[in-house]
Amino acid sequence: MNDQCFALAEGLVSSSYIRQAQQARRTREAMVKSLLAQRRLPPHGWDDATLRLFLHELALMDSNTFPGNVGVGEREARVVCPLVAQRHFGFGHGVGRSGDIAEVQPKAAGSSLLYKLANALAADALRLAGAKEAREALVLPLATGMSVTMTLLALKAMRPHAKYVLWPRIDQKSCLKAIDAMGAIPVVIDNLLDGDELRTDVDAVRAKLAELGADAVLCLLSTTSCFAPRGVDKLLDLSRLAAEAGVPHVVNNAYGVQCAACMKAIGAASRHGRLDAFIQSTDKNFLVPVGGAIVATCSAEFGPPLLAQVSATYPGRASLSPILDLFATLLHLGASGWTALLARRAAFLPTFRERLAAVAAAHGERLLHTPHNSISMAVSLGSGGGGRPLTSMGASLWVRLISGCRICAPSPHPKKVAGIEFVNYGAHHHAYPCAYFTVACALGITEKDATLFLKRLDKTLTEWKRQGEPARLPAEQGAAAEGHAEEEEIA
Amino acid sequence: MNDQCFALAEGLVSSSYIRQAQQARRTREAMVKSLLAQRRLPPHGWDDATLRLFLHELALMDSNTFPGNVGVGEREARVVCPLVAQRHFGFGHGVGRSGDIAEVQPKAAGSSLLYKLANALAADALRLAGAKEAREALVLPLATGMSVTMTLLALKAMRPHAKYVLWPRIDQKSCLKAIDAMGAIPVVIDNLLDGDELRTDVDAVRAKLAELGADAVLCLLSTTSCFAPRGVDKLLDLSRLAAEAGVPHVVNNAYGVQCAACMKAIGAASRHGRLDAFIQSTDKNFLVPVGGAIVATCSAEFGPPLLAQVSATYPGRASLSPILDLFATLLHLGASGWTALLARRAAFLPTFRERLAAVAAAHGERLLHTPHNSISMAVSLGSGGGGRPLTSMGASLWVRLISGCRICAPSPHPKKVAGIEFVNYGAHHHAYPCAYFTVACALGITEKDATLFLKRLDKTLTEWKRQGEPARLPAEQGAAAEGHAEEEEIA
Amino acid sequence: MNDQCFALAEGLVSSSYIRQAQQARRTREAMVKSLLAQRRLPPHGWDDATLRLFLHELALMDSNTFPGNVGVGEREARVVCPLVAQRHFGFGHGVGRSGDIAEVQPKAAGSSLLYKLANALAADALRLAGAKEAREALVLPLATGMSVTMTLLALKAMRPHAKYVLWPRIDQKSCLKAIDAMGAIPVVIDNLLDGDELRTDVDAVRAKLAELGADAVLCLLSTTSCFAPRGVDKLLDLSRLAAEAGVPHVVNNAYGVQCAACMKAIGAASRHGRLDAFIQSTDKNFLVPVGGAIVATCSAEFGPPLLAQVSATYPGRASLSPILDLFATLLHLGASGWTALLARRAAFLPTFRERLAAVAAAHGERLLHTPHNSISMAVSLGSGGGGRPLTSMGASLWVRLISGCRICAPSPHPKKVAGIEFVNYGAHHHAYPCAYFTVACALGITEKDATLFLKRLDKTLTEWKRQGEPARLPAEQGAAAEGHAEEEEIA
Amino acid sequence: MNDQCFALAEGLVSSSYIRQAQQARRTREAMVKSLLAQRRLPPHGWDDATLRLFLHELALMDSNTFPGNVGVGEREARVVCPLVAQRHFGFGHGVGRSGDIAEVQPKAAGSSLLYKLANALAADALRLAGAKEAREALVLPLATGMSVTMTLLALKAMRPHAKYVLWPRIDQKSCLKAIDAMGAIPVVIDNLLDGDELRTDVDAVRAKLAELGADAVLCLLSTTSCFAPRGVDKLLDLSRLAAEAGVPHVVNNAYGVQCAACMKAIGAASRHGRLDAFIQSTDKNFLVPVGGAIVATCSAEFGPPLLAQVSATYPGRASLSPILDLFATLLHLGASGWTALLARRAAFLPTFRERLAAVAAAHGERLLHTPHNSISMAVSLGSGGGGRPLTSMGASLWVRLISGCRICAPSPHPKKVAGIEFVNYGAHHHAYPCAYFTVACALGITEKDATLFLKRLDKTLTEWKRQGEPARLPAEQGAAAEGHAEEEEIA
Repeated sequence: MNDQCFALAEGLVSSSYIRQAQQARRTREAMVKSLLAQRRLPPHGWDDATLRLFLHELALMDSNTFPGNVGVGEREARVVCPLVAQRHFGFGHGVGRSGDIAEVQPKAAGSSLLYKLANALAADALRLAGAKEAREALVLPLATGMSVTMTLLALKAMRPHAKYVLWPRIDQKSCLKAIDAMGAIPVVIDNLLDGDELRTDVDAVRAKLAELGADAVLCLLSTTSCFAPRGVDKLLDLSRLAAEAGVPHVVNNAYGVQCAACMKAIGAASRHGRLDAFIQSTDKNFLVPVGGAIVATCSAEFGPPLLAQVSATYPGRASLSPILDLFATLLHLGASGWTALLARRAAFLPTFRERLAAVAAAHGERLLHTPHNSISMAVSLGSGGGGRPLTSMGASLWVRLISGCRICAPSPHPKKVAGIEFVNYGAHHHAYPCAYFTVACALGITEKDATLFLKRLDKTLTEWKRQGEPARLPAEQGAAAEGHAEEEEIA
Repeated sequence: MNDQCFALAEGLVSSSYIRQAQQARRTREAMVKSLLAQRRLPPHGWDDATLRLFLHELALMDSNTFPGNVGVGEREARVVCPLVAQRHFGFGHGVGRSGDIAEVQPKAAGSSLLYKLANALAADALRLAGAKEAREALVLPLATGMSVTMTLLALKAMRPHAKYVLWPRIDQKSCLKAIDAMGAIPVVIDNLLDGDELRTDVDAVRAKLAELGADAVLCLLSTTSCFAPRGVDKLLDLSRLAAEAGVPHVVNNAYGVQCAACMKAIGAASRHGRLDAFIQSTDKNFLVPVGGAIVATCSAEFGPPLLAQVSATYPGRASLSPILDLFATLLHLGASGWTALLARRAAFLPTFRERLAAVAAAHGERLLHTPHNSISMAVSLGSGGGGRPLTSMGASLWVRLISGCRICAPSPHPKKVAGIEFVNYGAHHHAYPCAYFTVACALGITEKDATLFLKRLDKTLTEWKRQGEPARLPAEQGAAAEGHAEEEEIA
Repeated sequence: MNDQCFALAEGLVSSSYIRQAQQARRTREAMVKSLLAQRRLPPHGWDDATLRLFLHELALMDSNTFPGNVGVGEREARVVCPLVAQRHFGFGHGVGRSGDIAEVQPKAAGSSLLYKLANALAADALRLAGAKEAREALVLPLATGMSVTMTLLALKAMRPHAKYVLWPRIDQKSCLKAIDAMGAIPVVIDNLLDGDELRTDVDAVRAKLAELGADAVLCLLSTTSCFAPRGVDKLLDLSRLAAEAGVPHVVNNAYGVQCAACMKAIGAASRHGRLDAFIQSTDKNFLVPVGGAIVATCSAEFGPPLLAQVSATYPGRASLSPILDLFATLLHLGASGWTALLARRAAFLPTFRERLAAVAAAHGERLLHTPHNSISMAVSLGSGGGGRPLTSMGASLWVRLISGCRICAPSPHPKKVAGIEFVNYGAHHHAYPCAYFTVACALGITEKDATLFLKRLDKTLTEWKRQGEPARLPAEQGAAAEGHAEEEEIA
Repeated sequence: MNDQCFALAEGLVSSSYIRQAQQARRTREAMVKSLLAQRRLPPHGWDDATLRLFLHELALMDSNTFPGNVGVGEREARVVCPLVAQRHFGFGHGVGRSGDIAEVQPKAAGSSLLYKLANALAADALRLAGAKEAREALVLPLATGMSVTMTLLALKAMRPHAKYVLWPRIDQKSCLKAIDAMGAIPVVIDNLLDGDELRTDVDAVRAKLAELGADAVLCLLSTTSCFAPRGVDKLLDLSRLAAEAGVPHVVNNAYGVQCAACMKAIGAASRHGRLDAFIQSTDKNFLVPVGGAIVATCSAEFGPPLLAQVSATYPGRASLSPILDLFATLLHLGASGWTALLARRAAFLPTFRERLAAVAAAHGERLLHTPHNSISMAVSLGSGGGGRPLTSMGASLWVRLISGCRICAPSPHPKKVAGIEFVNYGAHHHAYPCAYFTVACALGITEKDATLFLKRLDKTLTEWKRQGEPARLPAEQGAAAEGHAEEEEIA
C-alpha cells in the first residue's frame, strides 16, 4: 500500500479514516526507517503486527518470491512443503555465499539485509547487557560449541603453527570437544578451591604459557557462566597475561549475557588486557530455540580481523533460521523489554538464593558460598537416600516434573572426555569436598517457577532424608530415571 | 483424544458420527505407528492435517511443553517471542548433547525422536533416489560445505597424521574452503578435456597418491553434481584407487540426489571400491530452505564408523530447524511424491535440453556436449555485446527476472581461492576453449519456468547479437548489475 | 518499506540487489493499485506472499492495530487469546455499523475497505461464472438460508402488506424455513413430472398469483441448483410472470454459481422479465468454509434498492470472517484460476455421468434422465438389500468413507416441515415413481474422487444386490449408521 | 500417538524419556476428558500447545479431513485457498443443519462437538460472571443486534398475534433496528431523569402494557449496559411486570457480562419475576473479534423453550468461526483467567473514575453522577472550542489516537431511526440538560491505556478551553474528522 493505493482507497472508504490509517502506516515506516538508520534495538518492542509485516517485507525482497521470477540455477529456494514454506515466511536462501557467511547474496537481498541488521542488533543487545564496549558481533547459525570450534579454526588460519589451547578446567563437555573437534590440543589448567568456590589458577596458566611458549599457544580459552561451585574465570588476570604474551584470548560466555557481572568483566578485561572475542549462545541468553551463537568483540585491535576470519572461514551457506529467531526476538523485546528481562532476573536472584538456602537449612544442608557465580547455585547433599545412589534424588525430582536440577556426586572412577582423563568429572575439580546439587536462576525464570520448585524440592528432600522412596515412582521407572539422572549429572 | 474421550463425546454427539471420527483417528494412528515401526517413507504423502498433528504431538513430548513442568536449569527452552515459538511448533531444545549430535536429550524426547526418524527417512529417500545400497544417513543442521568440513574433521580424528586432500578440480568455492577451513592441504588434480566435457584425470590422481603416500592422504574428495561443461567425477575409478591404497573416499554429492545417474554411480562405486561417505544438501535435493545436509554411506565397512565419528565430533547442540524442514517435507511427499518429483525432472530434461539447443542454434551458438552431466547445461557464447564484457549478458538476464543463469568468460587474471591460484577460475579448467553460460534443469523446475526462460533468453540473445543495450537498463544500473554478474560468474 | 527505507537498506546491501527488490515491491504495489482501481478479479491469482502481505496491510488500517492507539470505548477490538488474534490477522471490528451492514466503520478503515472490495470481486466472479449482467453483489456473513430470510425481511419492509411467498416445491428444509423464520406464509407449488425430471408448474404459479392477488404476494421464490431428479426452475417464465404482475422475484441459487446454465438462465431471466435478486452460498460455490452467502442482482431497476434495503435491514455489526475467506479465495484464484475451476467441473460432468450410468447399468439400475440439472445426478434403486430399508445402503457407503451420497426412498408417512405437510418428502414430489440415490458433480471434485467413489459404489451395489451385509459393518454400528442414513436422506 | 506408538518410540529413544512424555500426554488427555465430562471452564487456562492440539483433534473428527474420504455431495467442505484452510484449522462444515442451528451434523462430528461444548462453556462463563442461575446458553454466530432479531422472530413464532415490543429508550441504533428488522412495532418508553442519571420509567411501561394489552405485546426488551448517563434498566421491576402480565421479557445485555452488577440483576430478576432470555455480545465481553452473541437464560420455565425455538428458527447452516473464537478463548482463559480478567476491570473502575473526575474538575467540568452504570462514565462539556461545534473535540481526540470517546451534544434537529423520530438522539432523553462526553472502563483496558488517555484528554481540554485549534490538525482534516465525530456521536 503506497500513497497511490491509499488515494484509491479513498474512493471506497471515507478519506478521513483512510488518512488515519495512512498516518499509522507512516508511523510503522518510521519505525523501520529508524531501524535501518540506527541499527540499534528500537526503544520499545515492536508489536506483533509490525514485526510480522516487516519480516514479510524482507522475505519479499528475495528473488524466489518475486512475481514473475524464473530460476534456472541449481539453487532457487524452491520449497515444496507448504508447512515448511510458511514457517520461514518465504525465506529460503539461507545466509552466506561460498566465500563468506557474512557476504551478501545476489538472489537474497532480504535475507542479507536481515542478517546485517541481526548482527548490528546483537551487538547493541550485548552493550545493553553490560559489555558497553562491544564493537561488533557476528551471529552464527551454530550453537555455542560449534561456534567455539569455528573461532578456533579461524585463529588456526591466522596462527598456523600454534597448537595448544590453554583451558582452565570446566566440566562441560561441549567446550572441551570444541577444541578437540578442530584438532588443537587442550591443556587443562586445574582450578583452585577458595572456600566453597572454584577459581582460576592464574599462576598455573602463566607457568604453562611460559613452558609451552606463546607461539605454540593458539589461545587462552576461559569461561564465564558455569555450574556452581565454580566461579567465573579471572578474566582480567587472564587478559593481562594474554596481552603480555601476545596470545589470543577467547571467552566462552555461553549463558553469561544474562549476568551483568560477566558482561562487565568482559568489557573491563577487553580494555585492560587482551580479549579477542567472546562467544555466547542465543538460546540461553535471548530465549530462542537452540541453534545460534554470537561471536562478539570489544577489542578494536584484535576483534575485527578475527571476526572477519571467522566469517571467511565458514565454507558455503548456512541456515537463516536461528538468525531470524534472534532478530525477531530482539525487535519483539526492544531495548526496554530486553533490559527489563535482564533486570527481572537480577532482581529475583537474591530472593531465590535466600529461599533456596532456607529450604536447604531446613533439611540440614547448606547453600554453598559462591560469590563469583551469579546464575548457578549449589546446595550440599549429605546423608539420606537409604543407601541409594545420590543421583537417584535427581530422578525423584524429574518424576516431579523438575527439569534442570543437577546432582553432582564425587566419583572414584576417572572419566575420559576428548581423550583426557578427569577425576571427579562434573565437579570441575578432582577432589571437591562434598556432593551437591545445582540450580540456576536463569533468564526467564518466574517467581511461580521458583515457588513450585522449592515446594517440590522440600518434599523430595523430606522423603530423601527419611530414606523413603518417592511416592509414585514404581520400581522399574525408578531405575530408568536413575539412569537418566546419572547422565544428567554431566550434561 | 483417547478412547475415553471419544466415549464421553458420545454423550454430546451421536455415537455413529463419533465412531466414524474415531475410525479416522485410528487410521491416522496407524500411519504414525507404521512410520515408527518401518522408519521408511510412507507410501503416500501425509495430508497437511496429519502432518501438523504429528509435529504437534512430537513437540509435546519435550519437557518444556509439559503441563506443570518447572525448569531450574540454565537451558529450559523458554521462548519469549510468540512468533518464534510458533514457527517451531513448541520445539526449543535443538538436537544433540555435549557428547554427540545424535545423542538423545533427556529433556527432549520428541526432538530426539524426530531426529532419529529424520535420519531413517533420509536414508530411505536416498535409496529411492537411486543409491539402493544406502545404509545410513546423518542429517546435519549445516549446509553442504560445513558438512564436508565436519566429515573431514572426523576423518582427521581417525587419521591424525594425514594432511592432504586429493581433489579433482571443481570451481566452486565452498568445497575448497571446506578443506581449507579444517586445516588440511588441498591437492588440486586438473581435469582432462574430453570433447566439450571436463572429466577426472584418474591417472593424475593415482600418481599423486603414490607421490604423497597413502598415509599422508586424509581422503580423496570427489564431486558429482557440478556446473557443465564439467561432468561427474569417475567415481568407480576413484573408489577402486581408494580401495587399493586404503585411503578414504568422500563424495561431494551436493545436488546430485536429484540425478539417478549420480546416485547409481555412488552405489556402484561403493560396491566395487571404497566410498566412505557422500554428502548432499537438503535444500537443493529436497526443496527446503538452505541449512541442512545429509552425510550418508553405502559402505558397511567404512560408513558406520565414519558417521559415528562425525556425530561424535560435533561439539554440543545444534538447531533442529533444518532437520524439521526435511522431516516434514519427506512426510509431505511420501515415497510416491518423492519419486514422482524426481521422475518429473528426469522426464523434462531431454525436452529442456533440446529446446535450449534450438534457441542457441538460432543465435549461432551451440549447446556444449556434456553427456556426463544430467543437471547443468552449457551454451557457447561467441560474438556479440558490442564490446561490453560478456558477463553483462548475465546482468541483462537478471534484469529480466532470470535468476541462476551463470556466464563464464575466460579470464587472463588468475584468482586465488583458499590460498591457491587458479587460472580461468569458474571454468574448472585453466584453458577451457570458449566462453559459455550455464543453465540447470534442477529439481522443481516447471515447464512454464523453462518456457519463460527460453523466451527471455531469446530476447536477450537477439539484443546481444545486435550489440544493442538491454531495453530498460539505465547506465548506472548496468554497471551494478555487471558487478553482480561477475560475482555470479563464480558463485 | 517505503523508498526511504530502501535507500537506507542500500547502506547495508549492494544497491543493485536492493533495487531489484524494490522493483519487485513496485510490481506488488501495482497489483494492489490495480485491484483498488479496477475492483475486479486480478487476471491471475495472487501468490500466497502477496496475498498475506495485503491482508496484513489491510488489518493494519484498523485503529485497534495502530501503534499508540488508546481505546476508551466499549468495543475496541481487543483480542485476548493469541491463537484467535492470529487467525484473524489482527482484524477485530467485524463489518457494519448500527445503521447498515455495508456502512464504513470509523475505527476500521481496513475492514471496511476489504468489505467493499469483497463485494466488488464477488460481483465480478458472478459475471465470469456466466451471469454477465450481474451489477451488484452484497456478501453477507450468513449462510444461504439466513440470507434468504434477510432478503425476505427487506422485501417485507418494502411491501409491508404482502404476506405470501410463492414457492415451487423443493425438498430442502432451509429454504422453506427461511420463509417461515421471517413470518411470511409459504405457498407451495407442486412440480410437474416430465419424464424422469421434475419441473416448475408455471401455470399453477400464474393461477395462484391471480388467486392471491399480486399485492398480497411478497415474492416468487424460485430455485436453480437442487438434487436431481428435480431440474432448475423455469426462471424465464417465472420472471415474465413476475414482471407482468409487478411482484418481486428472488432466486435461491444456492450452489448454482458453479453451473453456467444456471447463471445464464439468471442473466436471461433478468433481462427479459423481473428477477430482483439471486442468492448463493459462498462455501459451495467458492470452496470456503460454511458461513457466507452473496445476494446479487442483474437488475438495474429492482436490484439496487433491494440490496440497499437488505444492507440497511441488518441490525448492527457482523463477522468479517466469511467475507475475509471469500476475499482471500478470490484473490488467490484470480480470474484465470476461477474460470479454470469452473471449467474443470463442467468438463468432467459428461464423463462422470457416463461412468455413473455404466455402473448403474451393470447392476440393473438406470441413471435418471434429468437434462435440466447439471450438478446432481440420480440413479434408480430397485431390488436388493434383503428386506433392509433402502436407506441402509447409504449407511454402507458411509462406512466405506463415501460422504454426500443421498438415498431417497418413497415414504408413506407425510412429513411436516415449517408447519406444512409433505407427502414423500425428500423427493420434491408427492408421488415420484421410484426410489433413487443422488450424487453431485460439484465444484472441486476430482477425477480421483469419482473413480474411488464408483469403485466403492460398485462394491456396495454388488453386496446390496446379493442381499448381503456390508463387509466390515458390525451389527450395532449398522443400526447407528442406518439412523444416520435416514437423516441424510433429507439433509 | 497412542500407547502402541509410544512403545515403538521406545525403540528409538530411551524408555524413561518416552514414558515421561507419555505421562505428559496423559495429563493432557485428562484435561480433555475432564472438559468432556464436566462441560465447564477448566480451573486454569490451557496452554497454547494443548489448545491447538485439541482444536486440531476436533477438526480431524470432521469427515472432510478423514484420510480416504470421498465426497460426492454438493457440500463437502472443500477449501481451495490454503491460507483460508489454515485459519480454520481444517473446519469447513460450519454448524447447524437445515432444521436447527444446534443440530448435530453427520459429516461434522468435530464441529458439532465443539459447538455443544462452546454452549456449555458459555453458560458456565456467564455463571462465573455473576449470573449464578444461568441454566443454558446458545452461542450464535451473529452479533448482538441480529441475535436480538432472531430471538424476537422466535418469540413471534410462539406468539404469532403479538406485535409490539415495549422498549425503554436507549439511543443505540442496533437495538431499535433489531426490532424493526423482524417487523414488530417498537413502543418507546421515555426515560426518567434522576439527578444526572436516566432510569427506567416503570410506571410508563406498566401503563403502556395495560393500554396495549398483554396479548398484543411480543415482549419487553430492556437494556443493561449502555452509555452513561443512562443507567441499567430496572430489571427487577420490569420482570415483575412481565410475570404479572404474562409477557415475555428479553434483556439486551450487550456488554453487561463484564459487570457483576448487571449479571446479578439478571439473576435476581429471573428469580423474582419473568426474564426469558438475555443476550450478550461475544466480542465486547470475551474479547474476541466481532461476530457472535450468546442467548442465555436463567429461567427454567421460559428459557429452554425459547432457546429451542431460536435454535429451530435459524434456517440452515452458519459460520463456526465466531463460535470457535469464543471456545478457544474460554479454554485459553480457564475459570481463573476469566474471573481475573473480570476482577481487574472491576478493581480498576474506581481509580479510573476518580482520575477522570480529577481531570474534568481541573478544566471546570464535572463527572456526571451515574451510580447505576458501572462501565460507561460521562463528563460534562461546557464552554470552549471557540465557536466550533462541540463534536469537533472528538475529532481532536481521534487525531491524538484516542478511539471510543464519544461526544454528545444537544441537537435541535430530531433524528429518525427505524421510522421513529427522536429528539436529542444519542442522549437517551429528549432534553438532557447538558452536553457531555463518555468514556468506558471496558474489559481489557489497562492502567497504561487510561493514563495515556487522561494525558491526551487533559491536553485536548486545555486547547479546547483556550479555544485554540488542536496542534497538528490541518483545516481540511479537521473538517473531515468533525464529520467523523458527528457520526461517532451516535455510533
